[in-house]
Amino acid sequence: MTVIVMVGLPARGKTYIARKLARYLNWQGHAARVFNVGNYRRMRLGSNQPAAFFDPTNPTGVGARRAMAEAALDDVFAWLGDGGQYAIYDATNATRTRRSWVLAQCEAAGVRVVFVESICNDPAIVEANIVETKLLSPDYIGADPAIAVADFRERIAFYERAYETIADDSLSYVKLIDAGRQLVANNIRGFLLGRLVSYLMNLHIVPRTIWLTRHGESAYNALGKIGGDAALTEAGRAYATRLSAFLRERIAGEPTVWTSTLQRTLTTGQALPWGALPLRALDEIDAGICDGMTYAEIEAGFPEEFASRKADKLTYRYPRGESYLDVIDRLNPVIVNLEGKRKTVVIIAHQAVLRGLYAYLADKTPQECVHLEVPLHTAIKLIPKAYGVDESRFFLG
Amino acid sequence: MTVIVMVGLPARGKTYIARKLARYLNWQGHAARVFNVGNYRRMRLGSNQPAAFFDPTNPTGVGARRAMAEAALDDVFAWLGDGGQYAIYDATNATRTRRSWVLAQCEAAGVRVVFVESICNDPAIVEANIVETKLLSPDYIGADPAIAVADFRERIAFYERAYETIADDSLSYVKLIDAGRQLVANNIRGFLLGRLVSYLMNLHIVPRTIWLTRHGESAYNALGKIGGDAALTEAGRAYATRLSAFLRERIAGEPTVWTSTLQRTLTTGQALPWGALPLRALDEIDAGICDGMTYAEIEAGFPEEFASRKADKLTYRYPRGESYLDVIDRLNPVIVNLEGKRKTVVIIAHQAVLRGLYAYLADKTPQECVHLEVPLHTAIKLIPKAYGVDESRFFLG
Repeated sequence: MTVIVMVGLPARGKTYIARKLARYLNWQGHAARVFNVGNYRRMRLGSNQPAAFFDPTNPTGVGARRAMAEAALDDVFAWLGDGGQYAIYDATNATRTRRSWVLAQCEAAGVRVVFVESICNDPAIVEANIVETKLLSPDYIGADPAIAVADFRERIAFYERAYETIADDSLSYVKLIDAGRQLVANNIRGFLLGRLVSYLMNLHIVPRTIWLTRHGESAYNALGKIGGDAALTEAGRAYATRLSAFLRERIAGEPTVWTSTLQRTLTTGQALPWGALPLRALDEIDAGICDGMTYAEIEAGFPEEFASRKADKLTYRYPRGESYLDVIDRLNPVIVNLEGKRKTVVIIAHQAVLRGLYAYLADKTPQECVHLEVPLHTAIKLIPKAYGVDESRFFLG
Repeated sequence: MTVIVMVGLPARGKTYIARKLARYLNWQGHAARVFNVGNYRRMRLGSNQPAAFFDPTNPTGVGARRAMAEAALDDVFAWLGDGGQYAIYDATNATRTRRSWVLAQCEAAGVRVVFVESICNDPAIVEANIVETKLLSPDYIGADPAIAVADFRERIAFYERAYETIADDSLSYVKLIDAGRQLVANNIRGFLLGRLVSYLMNLHIVPRTIWLTRHGESAYNALGKIGGDAALTEAGRAYATRLSAFLRERIAGEPTVWTSTLQRTLTTGQALPWGALPLRALDEIDAGICDGMTYAEIEAGFPEEFASRKADKLTYRYPRGESYLDVIDRLNPVIVNLEGKRKTVVIIAHQAVLRGLYAYLADKTPQECVHLEVPLHTAIKLIPKAYGVDESRFFLG
């Protein structure tokens, strides 16, 4: 059990990072949840506290905020006791005293602590963050934008006076400095924490678009067979041509294009005017001994396998083949690579693989992942936002 | 093309890190080479220069060392022009002036530069490094150990006077502080550099032992068939029992045990007295359409495939299956995880997969990897050292 303790002044992207971490962990099958202390304050005291509430010399505000921090931490421990694995404690935790208190509570509960501090000294990034995200915050719903910004700056100023950066190198911590420019990892051990650090290192806030599509219809699709390495049908080739015209109109400059190593995505990718890189990690789920069969044939020939898969599609592994969890595991480097990209990416792949990628991008649970709709001949446009993703789907016939 | 420029005082593990990076990159199929300026000095001026040679007020020494640095950098560019991808320029590069000179040369050649600085403020680690590795250095062959240590300390003192840590945040750099305690990554972009940082984060100098073995003989082994998911033969089960007794005698405490997800390694692992974790990344190379055939059957049934594989076993990919390069790619997280482990690890896997792991551990090229001897019923004991690996093989009949 691990508590990831966010640290940082307001408007430093803490909640953004916290949610990204939770999404990444959940997607990989680790139970993760964000506990946002601000939400406790809003739920219990209402969302329209003025900046003066955050004045460290205002005893009412200090006491109330401390009570909210305690309530959230109590919930963290309750949730970890109930099967949770990674609790992300999202608050400013801006002073050494506050962090020592959190650490002592966690140590008493036998829970490992990793601090993630977001530091931003670039006023342009802070300003953009104030304007873009904080005005959409529940704290300022319905407020006059100019007044909201002034109030929020005052709130930040109260925190700045008391702020102490992490300076104790006996702690486990990660510092993220100036939105991806610099990362410091201190006393970070273990494979999964290492993966989290790689992931954090690739995060950036440059806007970009991700296109997902399956290959055009293949001969196996037409026959209802799964797996295989069949060529496109005439309808499939027509889709590749339409997709090319469609994307050419919508993408300025040269995107990154990834396909799998299977014929049906390679041929679809070759129709595009840009070069495509085949990645084995994007190959369709390996159906093992069921490769090349229809679902009716699997049900008739391997009724127990068919029933096991129906009972738990996520963890079911085809004999000599893969499970959805196996697919998600091998998609990990693709996601880390994708997070690092600063331009448009087009991914031409397969149903199960795209379910895995889409689940990450649209924050779906692994349980939802296996049932997501990813139909043939449909281009899915995704624009990642600070919180959530903008999605459009285009059926190209 | 990239030049990785090492930075640090003597006895800070620069050469160790440089060689590890080169090994990791080469193993993944990226042409990497270390250019050690000290070797140029030794080759051209002999290996027994006294500490006074490194005195920054000694013009002969300064000029000679600068000439060596230039000669090594010339060779870096020649090699990069000749197909090299990652040149690792291994020298102290201890001053801003020296680094600006290296950077200017690289920029003029259109080559990307990443600095890797090793900082160690823990006198115990520095002392251990002086005694363990420097006394084995070619600079002190045949010297009296006490005199060698004193001379080397004097040499370090000359560098300490002039040393300037990297402080320019417009550069791309990684700082490794106190042997794995802290890592700073600044302006590191791109997927492969991110992987290098993850790799560096997992390096440590805690000694440990790695045991590699194939599963016991399977029914397919007995028939000369490749792939499949056959059970162990009687001889195979007997090996599992012998292996268990053998390892129990030699391993104190509880090791980490990894198997593949295939029956023959699971059963072998179950014979051991410790729990084993099945990893899909350790499954045998996927022989695709040739799975379950003997080599004679492949030659008869798919003569072109057989010939292609013979012509280039490394890049040859079985139709619907994998190449050795595919296997090495999926072993990447296993290697990063393995580097991070601080205790004994036992890996029970398959011929092609163990060739891939062994190639990394024993610093073999991908070309050599595909022909390495990894026979059945043999336990391979590897103890990684600063430079190289100690190996013993035990045939257990």
